Amino acid sequence: MVGHAFMGRAHANAFRQVGRFFDLPFEVTPRVVVGRDPDRAEAARRQLGFLESSVDLAAVLERDDVSIVDVATPNDSHAEIAIAALKAGKHVLCEKPLALNLAQAKRMAALAKKAKMQVGLWHNYRRCPAASLAQQMIKRGEIGKVRQVRAVYLQDWLSDAKALGSWRTKQKVCGSGAHGDLNAHLIDMTHFLTGLRFAEVSGMEQTFVKRRRDADGKSRSVDVDDALAFLARFEGGAIGTFEATRMAPGRKNYNQIEVNGTEGSIRWNLERMNELELFRFDAPRDGQGFRRIMCMDEPHPYAANWWPDGHILGYEHTFVNTLADFLRSLRGRKVFSPNFDDGLRVQAVLDAALKSAKTRRWVKVSS
Amino acid sequence: MVGHAFMGRAHANAFRQVGRFFDLPFEVTPRVVVGRDPDRAEAARRQLGFLESSVDLAAVLERDDVSIVDVATPNDSHAEIAIAALKAGKHVLCEKPLALNLAQAKRMAALAKKAKMQVGLWHNYRRCPAASLAQQMIKRGEIGKVRQVRAVYLQDWLSDAKALGSWRTKQKVCGSGAHGDLNAHLIDMTHFLTGLRFAEVSGMEQTFVKRRRDADGKSRSVDVDDALAFLARFEGGAIGTFEATRMAPGRKNYNQIEVNGTEGSIRWNLERMNELELFRFDAPRDGQGFRRIMCMDEPHPYAANWWPDGHILGYEHTFVNTLADFLRSLRGRKVFSPNFDDGLRVQAVLDAALKSAKTRRWVKVSS
Amino acid sequence: MVGHAFMGRAHANAFRQVGRFFDLPFEVTPRVVVGRDPDRAEAARRQLGFLESSVDLAAVLERDDVSIVDVATPNDSHAEIAIAALKAGKHVLCEKPLALNLAQAKRMAALAKKAKMQVGLWHNYRRCPAASLAQQMIKRGEIGKVRQVRAVYLQDWLSDAKALGSWRTKQKVCGSGAHGDLNAHLIDMTHFLTGLRFAEVSGMEQTFVKRRRDADGKSRSVDVDDALAFLARFEGGAIGTFEATRMAPGRKNYNQIEVNGTEGSIRWNLERMNELELFRFDAPRDGQGFRRIMCMDEPHPYAANWWPDGHILGYEHTFVNTLADFLRSLRGRKVFSPNFDDGLRVQAVLDAALKSAKTRRWVKVSS
Amino acid sequence: MVGHAFMGRAHANAFRQVGRFFDLPFEVTPRVVVGRDPDRAEAARRQLGFLESSVDLAAVLERDDVSIVDVATPNDSHAEIAIAALKAGKHVLCEKPLALNLAQAKRMAALAKKAKMQVGLWHNYRRCPAASLAQQMIKRGEIGKVRQVRAVYLQDWLSDAKALGSWRTKQKVCGSGAHGDLNAHLIDMTHFLTGLRFAEVSGMEQTFVKRRRDADGKSRSVDVDDALAFLARFEGGAIGTFEATRMAPGRKNYNQIEVNGTEGSIRWNLERMNELELFRFDAPRDGQGFRRIMCMDEPHPYAANWWPDGHILGYEHTFVNTLADFLRSLRGRKVFSPNFDDGLRVQAVLDAALKSAKTRRWVKVSS
Repeated sequence: MVGHAFMGRAHANAFRQVGRFFDLPFEVTPRVVVGRDPDRAEAARRQLGFLESSVDLAAVLERDDVSIVDVATPNDSHAEIAIAALKAGKHVLCEKPLALNLAQAKRMAALAKKAKMQVGLWHNYRRCPAASLAQQMIKRGEIGKVRQVRAVYLQDWLSDAKALGSWRTKQKVCGSGAHGDLNAHLIDMTHFLTGLRFAEVSGMEQTFVKRRRDADGKSRSVDVDDALAFLARFEGGAIGTFEATRMAPGRKNYNQIEVNGTEGSIRWNLERMNELELFRFDAPRDGQGFRRIMCMDEPHPYAANWWPDGHILGYEHTFVNTLADFLRSLRGRKVFSPNFDDGLRVQAVLDAALKSAKTRRWVKVSS
Repeated sequence: MVGHAFMGRAHANAFRQVGRFFDLPFEVTPRVVVGRDPDRAEAARRQLGFLESSVDLAAVLERDDVSIVDVATPNDSHAEIAIAALKAGKHVLCEKPLALNLAQAKRMAALAKKAKMQVGLWHNYRRCPAASLAQQMIKRGEIGKVRQVRAVYLQDWLSDAKALGSWRTKQKVCGSGAHGDLNAHLIDMTHFLTGLRFAEVSGMEQTFVKRRRDADGKSRSVDVDDALAFLARFEGGAIGTFEATRMAPGRKNYNQIEVNGTEGSIRWNLERMNELELFRFDAPRDGQGFRRIMCMDEPHPYAANWWPDGHILGYEHTFVNTLADFLRSLRGRKVFSPNFDDGLRVQAVLDAALKSAKTRRWVKVSS
Repeated sequence: MVGHAFMGRAHANAFRQVGRFFDLPFEVTPRVVVGRDPDRAEAARRQLGFLESSVDLAAVLERDDVSIVDVATPNDSHAEIAIAALKAGKHVLCEKPLALNLAQAKRMAALAKKAKMQVGLWHNYRRCPAASLAQQMIKRGEIGKVRQVRAVYLQDWLSDAKALGSWRTKQKVCGSGAHGDLNAHLIDMTHFLTGLRFAEVSGMEQTFVKRRRDADGKSRSVDVDDALAFLARFEGGAIGTFEATRMAPGRKNYNQIEVNGTEGSIRWNLERMNELELFRFDAPRDGQGFRRIMCMDEPHPYAANWWPDGHILGYEHTFVNTLADFLRSLRGRKVFSPNFDDGLRVQAVLDAALKSAKTRRWVKVSS
Repeated sequence: MVGHAFMGRAHANAFRQVGRFFDLPFEVTPRVVVGRDPDRAEAARRQLGFLESSVDLAAVLERDDVSIVDVATPNDSHAEIAIAALKAGKHVLCEKPLALNLAQAKRMAALAKKAKMQVGLWHNYRRCPAASLAQQMIKRGEIGKVRQVRAVYLQDWLSDAKALGSWRTKQKVCGSGAHGDLNAHLIDMTHFLTGLRFAEVSGMEQTFVKRRRDADGKSRSVDVDDALAFLARFEGGAIGTFEATRMAPGRKNYNQIEVNGTEGSIRWNLERMNELELFRFDAPRDGQGFRRIMCMDEPHPYAANWWPDGHILGYEHTFVNTLADFLRSLRGRKVFSPNFDDGLRVQAVLDAALKSAKTRRWVKVSS
């Protein structure tokens, strides 16, 4: 595992836990954690339960006892590390978004295709049981043909003009602000749930607080969006609205998607991630309504691996579920998804929306 | 009152009820209902509690015992009737949207300004107690400076491709579809709650079902939108997203607006119209959360006129509250709002969004 | 109509409105309002839309142009007025609870049975569309055989020890406190929804604030309950819990009932009176959940008489719906319900629970 | 750890995870899992991450490298194992309820008092962040003096008459049904949140399905309650209602408690365990309402040990939080709570309620 901050903690937890709750074709050993600073890497090793720490990625990539490389670093190093790992013949798991920009993403996806190792992207919310269930329901036709998507990802941690800046407010490190961080989730979830492909987008961005003090006490310009919204047309006639913001007071992790079809609707919200809302035009007419499905009963996806009916899961379990499926894919012939192609598709939409926001025109999504 | 369909019923109820619940400077008598068909007008008179019916609007406008003309007809006759009434020296109440298009709206507003009678627009949701409270709270600074608006009006009555067409699906009668019908409410509510002015918009529309059978059994083309979404930039830097649709299964009258400010957020939804959700960054930090305010306690707007604490109001009460304020304005010097200027402002945004949807460009909102 | 306070206002509204929204076999004229004080009765007449006012009930009861007597007074005069009206050959509508105690209730019900006029009790919540729908659903077997009832009626207007006392805190006028006022609703709703009959109860009461100042400034002892809860066994093996309180901060009119059957559950809450929650063990297993039914669509009870789909009703409409059914019953042969027998049944449970609270024993419900 | 079924899995997870998320005074090693069947114990060892398995509890208790004994067996063996462990000088953690009956519980608590080792009871819901927050808020006076408690624990897994019987439906193994299983949680939570002591109770129980087939195919009588409700009087005048059932369709793990005080109310529900609802009579009057607090922000209890703001926890985290506090207590002088005295207090209430249900009288809670 390369990187050991917030995302590293979530991934490491998945590596430790996956074998305890899933019946897997082999055992996983969290072996080496790689960082830039030896002391911090060693502290992370102890805390996160790895056997070794290292600051020499190249050396680690040459080892035979390392089969999977997990990229848990900020966005600007995903491409470099993932490419090196693929060239070294490793399976690769990569934090989202796949890359800083479309060009990088294309190179990564092309290489992944040649490499024939399994590559996975940590779009972990796909494996939230309620989201998986939503995908199954849409696929089996419960809401008919999809017409509209309505997705928002609202947070509030930058509402305060005095909140500190960080790498997340620097264009050079993260590419964009709320957009790449949050809209990436919405776009991938839309792909996952509906199977639709974006045709074109019209975006709008805003940076409400133009300068922020960083942790080092210096005030620097904020060159990424605080909020970015866009309209979308999909191939085949469906339409959608998307919005990401870090400035919505009271919304902590309000990642919500509603899908309207010809015969029903579905809604999911990360703040109540164990619940799914489903509406269907089914008989009798006086009994129709959105139903709130508690998605931790035995028939629900992944539920049987965890606790008895009605005992809810939290944020981190989505990573464990993702890892379980990834590990299983290593023994099978099926390509794991989301992979770099999925990441590339997300990146193409992110890029188009950002370009649209800057040019003030509708932009076609490259495919 | 001119017209006696759905809106006429709601207005007539307000005329009958207002004096029972509000202390007014004078008594209101629902005198003449005007229609095109004498039998149907007479039936409406009986049902709705008027003294007379008529098919001769011109004659009614000449009567001295008629002080207020209420325009409750479909959108394509608002301008003609309101203008005639103003010219006859009557106070005018007009159903929304003000007009079929911006040119009409401008003429109406200009005439109203000269006429110096009170003119009112039935943007009734402003006087839902929870919405009035929201406006007061934003005005007194409870959520700080407004940064973002997020408004949707979702219905589902056209989801079924077999649902009948009507005047509401004919461009010639109503100007647009979900847009003029529903976005008009969202735009006026935004004006009312935030005081912001729209600067420019980027829209997208879709007609999912291109032909519908009308009540007469004939299939006709649908030349208005089923759904129209738009991005908005306001003067001063705030941004917003807006969407109206008649194709969201399970959403009956889901008119929802969320406003994010620098210090808090507010959300209101017509489906639970008696509740207001308020979030504030106030101390202590571990007790912050969206609070659900039941807006029918004695200190809430209009509540004291109705029932004891916690006894909720329904749809029609918003009309009664509106009428009460309008009638009071007849004795005062304060200009009633929403009036034709407010309607014109809404129309300008509607027009710009529609134009943008058709030209695929950002369009400035004329002022 | 005898009495013209809060309840009088709600009844008067029903008399004025019922003909505007329902197709009735005859027209209703709100003729005489009867009070104790001539000035206040006259003011009420004007405000509420009656033709005459009077302080002489006996004289009014002799008039031929009065067909229905509506009892809208405090609890201690229900019996006397209703009995006089029945003896005078009038149809009678009576505010709930039917009487101050079981003995009174029995006399009233016996007289009503002989009299053969229609008698009605204003248990208005039965005709809230969502509650009517719940009753229909349970009757047609949607939740199977009922096993458990869980009902609470929570208010908070006496939480403050400084809130004023009134007739509602005097045993002599109202019989009991939260119990007769609020549990009466829960008991009637249970009868209505489930058809179950109470067999025996075990109660507990508490008066948290023992003395209160009245409006006249004098402090008097509070000799009724602030809260009264009871356990119930029904004939046939079902069980239930019931609780009424005026001391639950934040609960304004939280009248909630949940019914669990062998195949499903149903829940209704007056604070969101237009919604009904329904759960059913129906296939497929991964799609089960409580559904929130917005009960103002065309197929729902009473909805077609009011507004288009999704336009909600308020508190007062339950009275109008009740009156409409009562008036229709005058032309039919079907006995209107809830009537004095229903009121007697409620009274029997109220009495048993109160007796149990005082004796600290299970008490059988007389039938 | 003795026992390795559902509860054993949850405890084992806590042993593995606690050091990863909490800074502890020493490292924890999950050493021996003890079972009755050597093969199943060994399989559990592998699955749950222990170093050894054993079927010889006596031998394990003699080992010096075992400091803590965790009792994760069904209720009928808690007393025997915990007593043996205490006699062997071990710290003890015990699954709830403490014992099969009050006599056992008294012996355990007495021994624990003498032993002076730390003893803990797995009333894990106390350490759900939202519940901990509720306790802090009540303690610091945010809702004033407590007057009423309203607690229900609703499940539905025995609604189906064909659901299989198990040790949970056998009086001999578990003492009671829903009562000991679920009301135990409600009673402990009441103690924890309010600090109130139960004075007397009046209970009612029901077994709706009198016989069930067990996993071995044989039909046996069900001699425990399916549902048990009771009224409670607390010392000092507060009152409460309590209900546990396994027959409420649609309720999966609906463990809900509402506490009403003189100045506010608080509500928590396990199905949305990361949220807390708080109402306060605080100014201004028009802004009062229940607020929904998302309890996973940095200032909330335990939140800083897990993920960034708004990333929710699940069921199992309550065990990890509990264990962290227990381990810290081993180094301190403060007695850990909940301990056997807390368990004894719960048991006294459980016993009194069960006795009351059987004798149909109010029963005093022994102290």
